[in-house]
Amino acid sequence: MKKLINSPNTFVRESLEGMARAHPDLVRVHFDPTFVYRADAPVLGKVALISGGGSGHEPMHGGFVGHGMLDAACPGEVFTSPTPDQMHEAAKAVHGGAGVLFLVKNYAGDVMNFEMATELAHAEGLQIASVLVDDDVAVKDSLYTQGRRGVGATVLVEKICGAAAQKGYDLARLTTLARRAALNGRSMGMALTSCTVPAKGSPTFELGEGEMEVGIGIHGEPGRQRMPLAPADSIADMLSQAILDDPAYTRTIREWDPSTAAWKEISLVSEPLRRGDRVVAFVNSMGGTPLAELYVLYRRLDEACAGSGIHIERTLIGPYITSLEMQGASLTLLRVDDEMLGLWDAPVKTPGLRWGI
Amino acid sequence: MKKLINSPNTFVRESLEGMARAHPDLVRVHFDPTFVYRADAPVLGKVALISGGGSGHEPMHGGFVGHGMLDAACPGEVFTSPTPDQMHEAAKAVHGGAGVLFLVKNYAGDVMNFEMATELAHAEGLQIASVLVDDDVAVKDSLYTQGRRGVGATVLVEKICGAAAQKGYDLARLTTLARRAALNGRSMGMALTSCTVPAKGSPTFELGEGEMEVGIGIHGEPGRQRMPLAPADSIADMLSQAILDDPAYTRTIREWDPSTAAWKEISLVSEPLRRGDRVVAFVNSMGGTPLAELYVLYRRLDEACAGSGIHIERTLIGPYITSLEMQGASLTLLRVDDEMLGLWDAPVKTPGLRWGI
Repeated sequence: MKKLINSPNTFVRESLEGMARAHPDLVRVHFDPTFVYRADAPVLGKVALISGGGSGHEPMHGGFVGHGMLDAACPGEVFTSPTPDQMHEAAKAVHGGAGVLFLVKNYAGDVMNFEMATELAHAEGLQIASVLVDDDVAVKDSLYTQGRRGVGATVLVEKICGAAAQKGYDLARLTTLARRAALNGRSMGMALTSCTVPAKGSPTFELGEGEMEVGIGIHGEPGRQRMPLAPADSIADMLSQAILDDPAYTRTIREWDPSTAAWKEISLVSEPLRRGDRVVAFVNSMGGTPLAELYVLYRRLDEACAGSGIHIERTLIGPYITSLEMQGASLTLLRVDDEMLGLWDAPVKTPGLRWGI
Repeated sequence: MKKLINSPNTFVRESLEGMARAHPDLVRVHFDPTFVYRADAPVLGKVALISGGGSGHEPMHGGFVGHGMLDAACPGEVFTSPTPDQMHEAAKAVHGGAGVLFLVKNYAGDVMNFEMATELAHAEGLQIASVLVDDDVAVKDSLYTQGRRGVGATVLVEKICGAAAQKGYDLARLTTLARRAALNGRSMGMALTSCTVPAKGSPTFELGEGEMEVGIGIHGEPGRQRMPLAPADSIADMLSQAILDDPAYTRTIREWDPSTAAWKEISLVSEPLRRGDRVVAFVNSMGGTPLAELYVLYRRLDEACAGSGIHIERTLIGPYITSLEMQGASLTLLRVDDEMLGLWDAPVKTPGLRWGI
């Protein structure tokens, strides 16, 4: 295992310490329980937006804490869900009196722990809501997930909702927006190589020299198929067609309803992409794939969207939701309207994403 | 060779096409000869800042074209210098009547070709100057270089000088600033793995599972020593001590003097870092090393600087001057004064670096 770390046991903590030292104007890190939070938290009168998940996907989520995005992020160990007390303590630390929204990627551990944290926070009198992101069209149910996994769209939903929270949306309006943004995102990824979780010390899976894994999850979970390595254009076509051809998808999920203070099952329909739709297009590196290759993929994605009558309004190209040093990429298309586009363009100032400020 | 490309022959062109499509508001790409240029070029009355070099180091340089940074960048094939006609045509295309400054990394091919382009541009009546960046403390003379190689400081010099050009510095003042910025930068890098140039198809060098290369260049040139893999803190110490302990360095270089329209040899002294100095600290991924590991290095660099009485005023952490998919990292410290710090903070809007706008 070749990594720039001191020890698997100290990796996450030392990385967070480094981030806090590198960006003292933007973020602070609280340890035991561990969460990253805005240097200016709590922002009074603003809904606090909180996310979290296993480490190893940096800059997500801790790198998205700051003005116009998250108020706090709870990092677990590598590829391991954070615990309810992290989420609960983060909520108590950063809420500004206008409630808290948890943005949760659809992984069984994250979902369970955020549910427990929601109940804990409610019991303490916090007004709280939660929204699930589940945008991965590759598989229905997976190694760690019931339903679709939460992947690339998470970054875009955090940006859009972070801007809305910054702008003063109240908890009900922000929750509605978050649900709508999540429902409009579709992603699929692929890997050329595996990655190595430090504590394990050996690759998560094996791929032959001439092989790739299509439809992979962000922890190296198996995807749709293992197949011979193909040219970048064929890979871009495979991923973009899976996204563009994905039919309407009905999901039944549990969301915490702050008005009744109870869980309710709701059915939501994710409408397919249609000719004339406007999108934010996101080409993401799994960590080890360099930027120049992402642009080769984008070139083809741009052609595919043009061919399907999909208008790319904005782009995000780079390593934003990674799987350690894995080589590979994912594509995300998130349908936007004027409101979401305005929120996308709004100023953001975090370690991992910054513009307009 | 596992890469997201279609063919080694089309890789650079397709990547540039993708970049142009992804950022139509920021950059355009001209082909045959090939250069990336600001979408709003020429900016009348502004000195045009132009850099270039081999591809495979993205986002540098093409990703740094835009408001507040470069006016144009000339990409060669992977790890291959661009040609004089690229630089010459770029200068003609983007100059705004106030002269052109070439920022050149110290590699023999780049130096020679920028010198030819300088003479060509002068012959056509353009007012032109050139400044060399040579910040790599690892080796004196290298496989492709006489003197120190130009590495990480290039990114910081481009940012600072780009802001100055945007602000209206004239050619003489900008040249003086560029020289001063370049003289104040020191860098050193290391690699955990090699990289593979697409046209070659096999790794540039071989490193054993338990080995690393310290002092490596951005094309995989040999460094100071090959040694057993060490903990991140030891690596950060090795690199930061080499930078912090680097003595005064006198270099004799050729610079084009626009006032006499001739080359002149000048001797410049790069003063060592001293207690009380203020710096921009830059922790760079060679491409395949994920962000979380860079923060582990930064944590230790921050300690080392504090111990030496060096004040880190700003940080840049991420993959900005890469070597394809190589795993490894480099550290750069660039001493700044109030003027340079103000220019660092000035708004920038490029595909690869953006804030304040």
